[in-house]
Amino acid sequence: MNKLYFASDYQEGMAPEILNRLSETNLVPVSGYGTDEFCESARQKIRAACGSEDLDVYFLAGGTQANAVVISAVLRDYEGVVAADTGHVALHEAGAIEYTGHKVLTVKGDKGILRADALQEYLEAFYADGNHDHMVQPGMVYISQPSEYGTLYSRKELQALREVCDDYGIPLYVDGARMAYALACSENDVSLKELTELTDVFYIGGTKCGAIIGEAVVISNKKLVPHFFTTIKQHGALLAKGRLAGISFDTLFTDGLYERLGRHALEKAEEIRRSLRENNWQFFFETPTNQIFVVVDNATLKELDETVVYSYWEPFDNTHTVIRFATSWATSEEDTEALKKLIVRYGNA
Amino acid sequence: MNKLYFASDYQEGMAPEILNRLSETNLVPVSGYGTDEFCESARQKIRAACGSEDLDVYFLAGGTQANAVVISAVLRDYEGVVAADTGHVALHEAGAIEYTGHKVLTVKGDKGILRADALQEYLEAFYADGNHDHMVQPGMVYISQPSEYGTLYSRKELQALREVCDDYGIPLYVDGARMAYALACSENDVSLKELTELTDVFYIGGTKCGAIIGEAVVISNKKLVPHFFTTIKQHGALLAKGRLAGISFDTLFTDGLYERLGRHALEKAEEIRRSLRENNWQFFFETPTNQIFVVVDNATLKELDETVVYSYWEPFDNTHTVIRFATSWATSEEDTEALKKLIVRYGNA
Amino acid sequence: MNKLYFASDYQEGMAPEILNRLSETNLVPVSGYGTDEFCESARQKIRAACGSEDLDVYFLAGGTQANAVVISAVLRDYEGVVAADTGHVALHEAGAIEYTGHKVLTVKGDKGILRADALQEYLEAFYADGNHDHMVQPGMVYISQPSEYGTLYSRKELQALREVCDDYGIPLYVDGARMAYALACSENDVSLKELTELTDVFYIGGTKCGAIIGEAVVISNKKLVPHFFTTIKQHGALLAKGRLAGISFDTLFTDGLYERLGRHALEKAEEIRRSLRENNWQFFFETPTNQIFVVVDNATLKELDETVVYSYWEPFDNTHTVIRFATSWATSEEDTEALKKLIVRYGNA
Amino acid sequence: MNKLYFASDYQEGMAPEILNRLSETNLVPVSGYGTDEFCESARQKIRAACGSEDLDVYFLAGGTQANAVVISAVLRDYEGVVAADTGHVALHEAGAIEYTGHKVLTVKGDKGILRADALQEYLEAFYADGNHDHMVQPGMVYISQPSEYGTLYSRKELQALREVCDDYGIPLYVDGARMAYALACSENDVSLKELTELTDVFYIGGTKCGAIIGEAVVISNKKLVPHFFTTIKQHGALLAKGRLAGISFDTLFTDGLYERLGRHALEKAEEIRRSLRENNWQFFFETPTNQIFVVVDNATLKELDETVVYSYWEPFDNTHTVIRFATSWATSEEDTEALKKLIVRYGNA
Repeated sequence: MNKLYFASDYQEGMAPEILNRLSETNLVPVSGYGTDEFCESARQKIRAACGSEDLDVYFLAGGTQANAVVISAVLRDYEGVVAADTGHVALHEAGAIEYTGHKVLTVKGDKGILRADALQEYLEAFYADGNHDHMVQPGMVYISQPSEYGTLYSRKELQALREVCDDYGIPLYVDGARMAYALACSENDVSLKELTELTDVFYIGGTKCGAIIGEAVVISNKKLVPHFFTTIKQHGALLAKGRLAGISFDTLFTDGLYERLGRHALEKAEEIRRSLRENNWQFFFETPTNQIFVVVDNATLKELDETVVYSYWEPFDNTHTVIRFATSWATSEEDTEALKKLIVRYGNA
Repeated sequence: MNKLYFASDYQEGMAPEILNRLSETNLVPVSGYGTDEFCESARQKIRAACGSEDLDVYFLAGGTQANAVVISAVLRDYEGVVAADTGHVALHEAGAIEYTGHKVLTVKGDKGILRADALQEYLEAFYADGNHDHMVQPGMVYISQPSEYGTLYSRKELQALREVCDDYGIPLYVDGARMAYALACSENDVSLKELTELTDVFYIGGTKCGAIIGEAVVISNKKLVPHFFTTIKQHGALLAKGRLAGISFDTLFTDGLYERLGRHALEKAEEIRRSLRENNWQFFFETPTNQIFVVVDNATLKELDETVVYSYWEPFDNTHTVIRFATSWATSEEDTEALKKLIVRYGNA
Repeated sequence: MNKLYFASDYQEGMAPEILNRLSETNLVPVSGYGTDEFCESARQKIRAACGSEDLDVYFLAGGTQANAVVISAVLRDYEGVVAADTGHVALHEAGAIEYTGHKVLTVKGDKGILRADALQEYLEAFYADGNHDHMVQPGMVYISQPSEYGTLYSRKELQALREVCDDYGIPLYVDGARMAYALACSENDVSLKELTELTDVFYIGGTKCGAIIGEAVVISNKKLVPHFFTTIKQHGALLAKGRLAGISFDTLFTDGLYERLGRHALEKAEEIRRSLRENNWQFFFETPTNQIFVVVDNATLKELDETVVYSYWEPFDNTHTVIRFATSWATSEEDTEALKKLIVRYGNA
Repeated sequence: MNKLYFASDYQEGMAPEILNRLSETNLVPVSGYGTDEFCESARQKIRAACGSEDLDVYFLAGGTQANAVVISAVLRDYEGVVAADTGHVALHEAGAIEYTGHKVLTVKGDKGILRADALQEYLEAFYADGNHDHMVQPGMVYISQPSEYGTLYSRKELQALREVCDDYGIPLYVDGARMAYALACSENDVSLKELTELTDVFYIGGTKCGAIIGEAVVISNKKLVPHFFTTIKQHGALLAKGRLAGISFDTLFTDGLYERLGRHALEKAEEIRRSLRENNWQFFFETPTNQIFVVVDNATLKELDETVVYSYWEPFDNTHTVIRFATSWATSEEDTEALKKLIVRYGNA
């Protein structure tokens, strides 16, 4: 029997629509490095989705790369980036930000969210410290939408963050590796247009949202990153065959595919969540998007290992573990049903 | 009328065999970050082609990235990489090596080739200099096969370089962005097995040789780059969906596809070269691989611009320019014939 | 009236013995970059004090510089340095470590001390994490003796740290910016010989201990830092007139001057501490060396500002502040008596 | 017999006037990090000498450090610094600039001088290259006054460089490690005031001009380097006891000491040069400042080795060598006479 794969949202290839388009265009010769017509078309569609013609759009290969390239491009040498302590840049990027010479300045997060008041408090304390000239200057704020824990910033929270950033003259950057799963979420009230208005730069995730590669960096505050093309090249992040990312995003932003893929994942996640609730599984905490964190006793976990591929998250206590189930654009009806049967079997009466 | 594209070897998508394999495997769920079965199969085939089981193989996205990741991983902070002054790392990577903190130490090249005696002379002079402790230590030698000018290192030359490297205890690295066009060349006498034996690390180019993305880094001197996986992640170079590169290389190294693609390009290049010779075009210098450099008077160039897309290389004199025609695995019979007609038309009686 | 200076241990020039020696030798011509006879003599005396002939000794200008040069020289690119969250490298060096590309991995400290069990726990958790290949590898442990809070590692604690480091194959480094104030302390049971045996590299502080400039880096694990001279130059840390540091350390390590200067500071600190205790001042916590941290109500602080220069540390609560008094080799009898009078005046009955 | 020291201008301690002032002020307590009254006084005197109140002045320890801190602070990540191929930053700083992530872009120099037309030609060719977005952007121009070969930029040449820089919007930086020997030179027509007007930032050398440590960075284009204090700290270049550099420069800029020290060196150099000429020694090329380069046959050199300490420069041919004699503020009458006797003895009839 094949296992059930709920480990992540990057375990399958790409949305069939993208594969088809790659096929159709395969032998069309175009110029390299993202200067081709597919990239240009994708840029136009993204600008339209973001509600502004005045945006620079660049395509990069992956999330850690996008974070390192954007953050190092924005920061001056003496500056660091402020992030929640659970931020991807703070923990799971192997020091990619530090490798570019910059410190990640962490603020205690709340279920993955960097609260505006926590940011405010951090910045106030920083500038109150008589030694702050001997310390890394906060030069940028990093958040993820959805967060690494699948939670969402509300519009109000994002506005509050923006205000704090404005008060201190600090740009705001959003890591949107899983953006499709935010946009398609019924609880979400932050559209791409609002993201564009409320941030200086953000990226729309492709790799975890239906593309086989690619993140689209959207820059509204253009003067922040002069010569960004050269910066991308310098990071080894310039795709010679930019067409791959271009065609992917052009397809994702045609006929609402991007949100449709997100919605599919969220429907499957919702089914699973409902089943978990009905069968009295313990949530680590509830999340509205495609990542579900549950606390499982270790004996059950051992049995689950036989049939399900999930993500190990962290120990909960001596006898329990936090694990993650993730759905994606590719999660099948069949696998979902099979997982639900297991949820029933191992549920708590 | 459509233009004729001879600008580069990365203007089309990917070899149809790869596209088919991507299609067939698209919905198979696998683990991320190059730990999947496709990557593992590709590794085994590359090891077989290189004649050794004892090789580490990693897949990266592009050439500048591969160079920056490998070179910075091998060098200690106080070391630089020695390259021909025409080396890709010395000129056209936007300072990607310097961005990792290392100097590129240039030695005058000979039509793109770093000659062993020039290297020897450089190293002798370096260590003879009483101030060499105040200078960047040569910590690695970088060459390209084929070179940036389409020329080839012979086995004998490579052995001579290896000996100099051994005398000074310096690792040798080969950038094989266009390796297919070396391997398939009748003048070439350096196989993958010999490359493996004579170097510490090299990469087999995918992007310019039939894949849409991907370079395979082959490491025989494994102790040079401990924790290379983490290093790749730190550079933002780890592909979440490693399957893309894995499937590409698995296909390229099945049934001799890699060399077959190379051979196609060389046959087309040879046809073009023959026509250029017959029609008395001036070669910048002769090359045996898929890149052809010719000197064209500027008036002719203006007319060519109407119908051909080529690469501008450099000014030759006030009235002439060096341009490059490149063929690839995708160059069609039809386009080659059309180019040959132009070659006749603009030839020198 | 002149103010009383108890702000730091670097507010006066240099020990008169050093000044005299600079005078006597001023016109002797010597070679540059630390290759002179004064540096060589200082090296020999430091080796003798450390109980080993087999030590490399280099002189740098200041503490942040010494930390950045040593730590970046020891670490490979994919590694970070583990430190207490109060460590100087973690907070007050303006990101000097991150600037060299490395993350500072923090562990909760205990009054400035990195406890061996906390380190053990951190390392265990790190290697237990299934994603640790995606994280910065712990490549070195950093501690300060005395700590940034004036506390001391006991010999037993240092041995315990060493054992944890050995278990994980991680080098141990000690920042000894204020080493004189440890060595001269009656509570201290860690001599230079033991430091040499228990660590891989440490530095003996000059700037805060009687020299006007200079820190002596002592390396017992020589293979850790090949080409260290070139590394120093690369950091812009090589003193052309190395004689300044050489003469300073040669003098400090002649006739026990270094410890004598330390002892003077500790005697003054002990007088002040006794007075604070007798007059019921509130210690932030007790420390045995030359730094004294007290909690002062803000009204008193305002009055103290008139006559004393101290160091502001951090807010304690809404109405109280933590401040630091520091003594040094230069603290006079007269100033100490004057401070004691203030301590009586503002004491709590 | 003691040897004659003409190896460099950093072989003695410091001008006696500085030593006296260090003595007088030794026990005055002041604040750290260059915020003290001595530094402030030095800053005021330097501003006066440079003819502008509107200058930021910072004190660093040495030349390589000053270059690395200033250049990395001015450049954005994607930029490099343009220098003559003989520039100190290009060769003898162990890759200090590359360590900060930036390439040194070299232009062929003329006896150490970067000619304005050579710079113009370089910049024109750079922007004419269709691939310049894939290359390091020229972000700053570096020159040395006097140059590494003891030659001088005339006012006219400096103005011409300034114009090229202005045309391309690139800041101009001058390394003045040996500035005293330019200012005191009769051939020199560039005063500190003109340097201030014609450049964006430069430094006035202390270490090679009478101080035991210290370079004064003078910034007229202040917006180039925001948060420069933090940048200095981040480089480990902030002197805790800034007083050392402050007192040194305060003394050097009192009663014309700086130029007086320079003049002394030049008088001695002129005596030596005259003697060399009269005795038909071969100059490598003539220089007007304190560095004298002569071509010596290797047999003579062997005999000179017995009595003189000079600097080996480079091989001239198989039987001759280029060496350097340098004078300084400390060169004695006695040693000069002794050297002149040797010059006569080994002269060519």
